[in-house]
Amino acid sequence: MTTDPLVIFTPSGKRGHFPPGTPVLTAARQLGVDLDSVCGGRGICSKCQITPSYGEFPKHGVTVTEDALSDWNAVEQRYDDKRGLKPGRRLGCQARIQGDVVIDVPPESQVHRQVVRKAATARAITMDPATRLFFVQVQEPDMHSPTGDLERLASALRDQWDIPRVTADLSLLAKLQPTLRKGKWQVTVALHKGHADTAARITEIWPGLHEGGLYGLAIDLGSTTIAAHLTNLETGEVTASSGLMNPQIRFGEDLMSRVSYAMMNPGGDVEMTTAVRAALNELTTEIAQEAGIDSSLIVETVFVCNPVMHHLLLGLDPVELGQAPFALATSDSISIGAPEMGLITMNPRARIYILPCIAGHVGADAAAVALSEEPGKSDDLVLVVDVGTNAELLLGNKTRVLACSSPTGPAFEGAQISSGQRAAPGAIERIEINPDTKEPRFQVIGSDLWSDQPGFDEATATTGITGICGSGIIEAVAEMRMAGLLDASGLVGSAAQTGTLRCVPEGRTHAYLIHDASADGGPRITVTQGDIRAIQLAKSALYAGARLLMDEMGVDKVDRIVLAGAFGAHISTKHAMVLGMIPDAPLAKVFSAGNAAGTGARIALCNIAARAEIEWVVHEITKVETAIEPRFQEHFVAANAIPHKTDTFPELSKIITLPAPSFNTGGDGAGGGRRRRRR
Amino acid sequence: MTTDPLVIFTPSGKRGHFPPGTPVLTAARQLGVDLDSVCGGRGICSKCQITPSYGEFPKHGVTVTEDALSDWNAVEQRYDDKRGLKPGRRLGCQARIQGDVVIDVPPESQVHRQVVRKAATARAITMDPATRLFFVQVQEPDMHSPTGDLERLASALRDQWDIPRVTADLSLLAKLQPTLRKGKWQVTVALHKGHADTAARITEIWPGLHEGGLYGLAIDLGSTTIAAHLTNLETGEVTASSGLMNPQIRFGEDLMSRVSYAMMNPGGDVEMTTAVRAALNELTTEIAQEAGIDSSLIVETVFVCNPVMHHLLLGLDPVELGQAPFALATSDSISIGAPEMGLITMNPRARIYILPCIAGHVGADAAAVALSEEPGKSDDLVLVVDVGTNAELLLGNKTRVLACSSPTGPAFEGAQISSGQRAAPGAIERIEINPDTKEPRFQVIGSDLWSDQPGFDEATATTGITGICGSGIIEAVAEMRMAGLLDASGLVGSAAQTGTLRCVPEGRTHAYLIHDASADGGPRITVTQGDIRAIQLAKSALYAGARLLMDEMGVDKVDRIVLAGAFGAHISTKHAMVLGMIPDAPLAKVFSAGNAAGTGARIALCNIAARAEIEWVVHEITKVETAIEPRFQEHFVAANAIPHKTDTFPELSKIITLPAPSFNTGGDGAGGGRRRRRR
Repeated sequence: MTTDPLVIFTPSGKRGHFPPGTPVLTAARQLGVDLDSVCGGRGICSKCQITPSYGEFPKHGVTVTEDALSDWNAVEQRYDDKRGLKPGRRLGCQARIQGDVVIDVPPESQVHRQVVRKAATARAITMDPATRLFFVQVQEPDMHSPTGDLERLASALRDQWDIPRVTADLSLLAKLQPTLRKGKWQVTVALHKGHADTAARITEIWPGLHEGGLYGLAIDLGSTTIAAHLTNLETGEVTASSGLMNPQIRFGEDLMSRVSYAMMNPGGDVEMTTAVRAALNELTTEIAQEAGIDSSLIVETVFVCNPVMHHLLLGLDPVELGQAPFALATSDSISIGAPEMGLITMNPRARIYILPCIAGHVGADAAAVALSEEPGKSDDLVLVVDVGTNAELLLGNKTRVLACSSPTGPAFEGAQISSGQRAAPGAIERIEINPDTKEPRFQVIGSDLWSDQPGFDEATATTGITGICGSGIIEAVAEMRMAGLLDASGLVGSAAQTGTLRCVPEGRTHAYLIHDASADGGPRITVTQGDIRAIQLAKSALYAGARLLMDEMGVDKVDRIVLAGAFGAHISTKHAMVLGMIPDAPLAKVFSAGNAAGTGARIALCNIAARAEIEWVVHEITKVETAIEPRFQEHFVAANAIPHKTDTFPELSKIITLPAPSFNTGGDGAGGGRRRRRR
Repeated sequence: MTTDPLVIFTPSGKRGHFPPGTPVLTAARQLGVDLDSVCGGRGICSKCQITPSYGEFPKHGVTVTEDALSDWNAVEQRYDDKRGLKPGRRLGCQARIQGDVVIDVPPESQVHRQVVRKAATARAITMDPATRLFFVQVQEPDMHSPTGDLERLASALRDQWDIPRVTADLSLLAKLQPTLRKGKWQVTVALHKGHADTAARITEIWPGLHEGGLYGLAIDLGSTTIAAHLTNLETGEVTASSGLMNPQIRFGEDLMSRVSYAMMNPGGDVEMTTAVRAALNELTTEIAQEAGIDSSLIVETVFVCNPVMHHLLLGLDPVELGQAPFALATSDSISIGAPEMGLITMNPRARIYILPCIAGHVGADAAAVALSEEPGKSDDLVLVVDVGTNAELLLGNKTRVLACSSPTGPAFEGAQISSGQRAAPGAIERIEINPDTKEPRFQVIGSDLWSDQPGFDEATATTGITGICGSGIIEAVAEMRMAGLLDASGLVGSAAQTGTLRCVPEGRTHAYLIHDASADGGPRITVTQGDIRAIQLAKSALYAGARLLMDEMGVDKVDRIVLAGAFGAHISTKHAMVLGMIPDAPLAKVFSAGNAAGTGARIALCNIAARAEIEWVVHEITKVETAIEPRFQEHFVAANAIPHKTDTFPELSKIITLPAPSFNTGGDGAGGGRRRRRR
């Protein structure tokens, strides 16, 4: 009596016996092994590449002989000639099982491959996007059984891919018949999986096997900046990233001023909706060009944004968000077609998903941060701070998660700053001030050299030195404080007080000169007293939000802080701490997570289960409303000072105290309502 | 021990015991009695009117005393003062049960009331439209439990109406917040029920109780004419009917000429789509004006049409329908939003439903006829003939139903006829020719008088006598044959041959003059030899289609014939039989059913279950393709003559034979391939 050959798949370890002649792909499917295939085993898509191993496998108890798989065949040879197969690789649909064999499924052949995120603390993203490609062979029409082409395509998808039900828009239907005939009844469709109980939607159809890829956009729509990541929906790879200023800025720099604009100007909401949609259309075209793809290959877009941006994006008047009780028109996630919301430069049948909002002031961006940073899965108490024009804050652990937002204003994004600009080549992003000489040195985006290093001028010749971006201004203010150019109240000292001619008069106050190219017609970059005040307001709001959550949680310290922001992974945790943006925590426990909201968007783009997850999670989050909470105001006022932290933070020992008189009534340090625990 | 009062509802006979104080509406709901309520028992919609009966009811074994219900209350008094309640009526939500009582639910208080159809053989329509009104009290927003307004509306619908899940388009969302506030958190919503597993869709929202009604359109989109019925979705009443010519006629009179136009002219399909959509938009506006309602109250539209009209309506190139195997882009029913198909003069969120197509030549109109006439539920073998530019034919009984379509051309609708016009005031719709004097008399649409009756000229003074409509030309040709003005081959005799000066020369042939107002600058209405030929072609096609179905069924007679057509109930069965439009059957077994396709559309509009029914039924119908069937051509050729039927049909004894020579090679009678059975 003979036994069928044993097939063992790695890395899953799944195993089973199969009759000789069974294709490896068939065996993988029957065992539930994650082996990709778009063409359904027809030997044309090459997605099912596998690597057989030969020899002794004592661990598995098998010996694999050279003839364990069928011989290399003509289909594989043709593919190898045309595209090249890596050595040792076979096509899983062609190679047939002849004897016991150990088969490795390389990561790129896995449908649900994992995309590793850069941030150290971050979880990997498992690829399982809502939209995927399927190649099908459709039955030709038959007069004696006269079903429509769509119905025969649907039945092919049912028979060949187990997809029970599909629908298609009229615009897809209009191209269905010519495409089926052009492809000689073989077509590739992009299918968007809906919720469990709805039909899958055919978003695109190509004749034959489509090999041009499939893309999605993850967009973090901030009040000040819009950041987009073009993501390959098959590999999870970010193909291109791009950003631009939110053109709504001309209607008001922060959220409340935009709501006011809508309230005061009839049709103002429509103006702002039109502006942001036009910017998104432009951004889509640009990012596709940058990646060198046809923008119609963008079949999905995920948005995260605060509630006001959310309403204006959707064409909803945000007026109710400007007054208590801050009622959202809708708080659940949104799933609609791109043209319905005026997005017309991606695929006309692209699907849009917008994460749910948590509350009237705590939006889909906060939900995205929760999805990315998972405070609700944390053992220790973690504070997640997403810095933007409106900051999102989450505090929690496995037992409970609180959320609020805080109106920091656009200063952290380089707006409302005299020499401020968005993060782009030429912007100062890092700065150090020598505490002895009070001389600055800096780095600009686009070069790794410091300004006092040889070759800096050449390296920055093309971009120039154009201004200071968000992370740059945070460092500048913190460095000024550490170099003794600022007192605890935030007052810039004079040249006489500070001993440096870089402290120059500016009206009744002083400014610190970082860079002066005005002699050559270039910019004169200073940090003015107004800039300091803007940063103080912003950081006080941020700090007050964090304190409010801590009050609500009944704690006065947190175990861990994750600092995130639309301007990327560039916030220096040390400088944020010096500035008093965030509550006290050991510096080693303060992490920078990059654009957590954008990452949350990317997770929802790449993994459909993550959408269901965050929809559930937001219902579990306790919302804290800052706008009506008197303690928020108290915390805000008390947090205005730029504290002296050397006592609690020996690692910040560079900080010195200014000899100049302090104008801060709270005195040096954190002042008033702010409690500090010494450890 | 006391027993709770017994409540008996009529006409349902449902009964139960309820604690004293239970509102009648509550008792009805608990028993599943069909008692309407839009406001959910708040005493404001007055839909739940009931009539209590008092006295002895031996049949039910109860005695109802005067105090069986609570006293007439202030809410009822207010309603009676404002609107008036019929004597004996109470509001079911206000009247409370105090003792045994018999309560009648009048038809107008039933949600699922029956709408009686005019045609004698027709089933009643049970009202259960896809879109209904619901009044709800929505919870006000609460900062501490910050869900969106939509989510609170959804939860009100869940709690107050057991509707598990709703969705809303962005355009609805945009008006949600102001409407909720204007209605002080009481609103009426129109909800469109989807398929069982999808969410209900909010198509409209009004502040407070909406009493302006809710409407739907049932549209029979024919190749030549478009007929629409505006239907009140609460009562099922047809509020207005209107029709216009299909403007696509300028691209070709019949289906194949339109397909050819699309094939020969790039963008031709788009032109035709644009034309028909513009006509539909105009028709919608007109019919709403005629009914005196705001067209935004039209929240649903059901279409029936043949496959070419179907594709052109949907913006699909019909080219595949012009050649074997006549593949439809889609054959299943269609359910989409009105704007998606360019319908912009009804509610912007109106839902469109298009019945399924049966085959490439047998469309949603044939499905609608099947829904209306139910051949598959018939005990005897019934032939249903829907006359139009493309005729739909169904033959069947409980065991089996066959369907085909037949290209009759537009002659039956008055097109391609020298004096033809669509059925509108001024058109000749009935005609009689005296067999002795050969003089005609006629009726025109808009007057009940015959042209030889006193007062006719006054009655038709405003409309004039403008032409002949479809039913008029059928009668004219049949009457000409019966009056001996035509021979069996269809040749019009000369004045000498026929003995009447009304037979006037026209080129090489003759025409029969019906009415001449040319002396006063009016029309000269004749039936020309060309008109006769057009009608002969049309009737031969119709007859051949019927014969083909009979061949397929293996029968040479049918038990019953139902004659239907877009031009209404106006086809004279007798004249149709004389003409040879339909196979032989006892005249008493030939019925006129009016616009069966339009009625099918109206059934699908008023009853959502009918949609599921017809979707199932079309899969059970056997499709017969006339275009590739050689026997169709044979039957067609053989059916060209206008037979002499006095032998088989004594009731048609007026028929005389022309003395003039016959040019029909088949001789007088049915000729060639046509078999006739004598009984």
